[in-house]
Amino acid sequence: MLIDKLTIVGAGLIGGSIGLAARRRGLAREIVGIGGDPKSLEVAISRGAIHSGTTDLGQGVQGADFVVFCTPVDRIAAQVRQAAPHCSAGAILTDAGSTKAAIVYELREGLPAGVSFVGSHPLAGSEKRGPEHAHADLFHNRICIVTPDLLTEPAAVERVTAFWKALGADVRLLEPGEHDQILARTSHLPHLVASALAAMLPPEFLAYTASGFRDTTRIAASDPALWTSIFLQNAGQLMEALTSFEVQLKAYRQAIEAGDAEKIAELFTQGKQVRDALGS
Amino acid sequence: MLIDKLTIVGAGLIGGSIGLAARRRGLAREIVGIGGDPKSLEVAISRGAIHSGTTDLGQGVQGADFVVFCTPVDRIAAQVRQAAPHCSAGAILTDAGSTKAAIVYELREGLPAGVSFVGSHPLAGSEKRGPEHAHADLFHNRICIVTPDLLTEPAAVERVTAFWKALGADVRLLEPGEHDQILARTSHLPHLVASALAAMLPPEFLAYTASGFRDTTRIAASDPALWTSIFLQNAGQLMEALTSFEVQLKAYRQAIEAGDAEKIAELFTQGKQVRDALGS
Repeated sequence: MLIDKLTIVGAGLIGGSIGLAARRRGLAREIVGIGGDPKSLEVAISRGAIHSGTTDLGQGVQGADFVVFCTPVDRIAAQVRQAAPHCSAGAILTDAGSTKAAIVYELREGLPAGVSFVGSHPLAGSEKRGPEHAHADLFHNRICIVTPDLLTEPAAVERVTAFWKALGADVRLLEPGEHDQILARTSHLPHLVASALAAMLPPEFLAYTASGFRDTTRIAASDPALWTSIFLQNAGQLMEALTSFEVQLKAYRQAIEAGDAEKIAELFTQGKQVRDALGS
Repeated sequence: MLIDKLTIVGAGLIGGSIGLAARRRGLAREIVGIGGDPKSLEVAISRGAIHSGTTDLGQGVQGADFVVFCTPVDRIAAQVRQAAPHCSAGAILTDAGSTKAAIVYELREGLPAGVSFVGSHPLAGSEKRGPEHAHADLFHNRICIVTPDLLTEPAAVERVTAFWKALGADVRLLEPGEHDQILARTSHLPHLVASALAAMLPPEFLAYTASGFRDTTRIAASDPALWTSIFLQNAGQLMEALTSFEVQLKAYRQAIEAGDAEKIAELFTQGKQVRDALGS
């Protein structure tokens, strides 16, 4: 697969890593980055993630045949609409957003003929931000979920699938709503929970934390603006996941208040079985 | 400081690490391990954590002048009572249990004259178990909380403090109840939350987890029996911590259901500030 002009909208940790991986694997003749901060674009250029950068979306996607949007989820649909008319005929547009239904359904109609959008979500990232943390192996052996719906061109799905595979990812196809239901439980709720656990700790207790607290709250250090838009875009599924979680908490509360050792051990064992299945 | 006979009751990850650290630092002339599983004692001997081992508590503590109990929290007080009459005059007994008030208050009275118990809790460990995972640096630069109450001999507190310092730990004194209040929030609630998060995940969603879920649920892999007794021994403080946590969850739910981006960002920022203060 060869891309003539690959444009990465949002050349931060994810976008920068896409650029580094694409370059290492000779996937695109030219790689252009778009970002709001010229200094960050310079970092991406100096790290070799992009050949050139611009703060102008229309200019950056001019004649592009493949565009990846790595911007906050509440901006992706509007940016795709704005960019599409500038792309080359037959261009494929995809994204790396953590929610899918809102974006994919918003972009079902109204794109110029010959330009296709296919939703993607690589399950890779970090609580860190910026192209300085980007690396070419970020997607290697990681899952990337591609989320066509019934109206998506099969040929476009194939190209997007081939793109992520070329970056080293293990691609899985899910419906957008299925993606959001799963990610609410595997990612969005854990972020909410980690954040709530960290927020309730009085600062004077910080000295008495160990690796358990560190691990459990690590993702609470993520970017608040990014996660606010993810929580809002997947509010329905997230609230359902929160309700399931509260049911688990209530079972724990009842067992502990009743002094029911057998029930507590049973609840803990349920969690351990799931976690053990993941490996360390 | 020199101990003539150091006995470690429960020569697993923590007990084995105490033995390795004490031996490396020449802290005791003889180190005896007590455990229920002869094979595990052999591992502890072969790793150099103890000189000899026995499954008999009375025999293992015979003539000991320093004893550390690294057994489940619901067994420590009874084992201390059982061991105390066999120890040498002036012996110091301490523990490594994750709860303190129940153990310390239970042992306030009735020990033989000249034998002192002082509660301890080194904030070091792992979801792993057994002497095969023990290492001499486990306590190096880690906090160890020592929890005397008003009736504890000051000289005994000093010896226990000196012991943990000699193993490399940074010792802090707290009242037993204060310890339990803090640890409910820094450790016991995070274990309960990690466990609940893992337990609610349908196994078919496991393929779609990434580092966020892994980190947040890592301690759910801990030993169910151990954590059942910790939850029960610190039930009051743990339920108070759970209530505070539920208040945070409710604030998130209200903000998300109201679509209040500003409030969500504010909640997330609170958690981030606490987590950022810990470092990565």
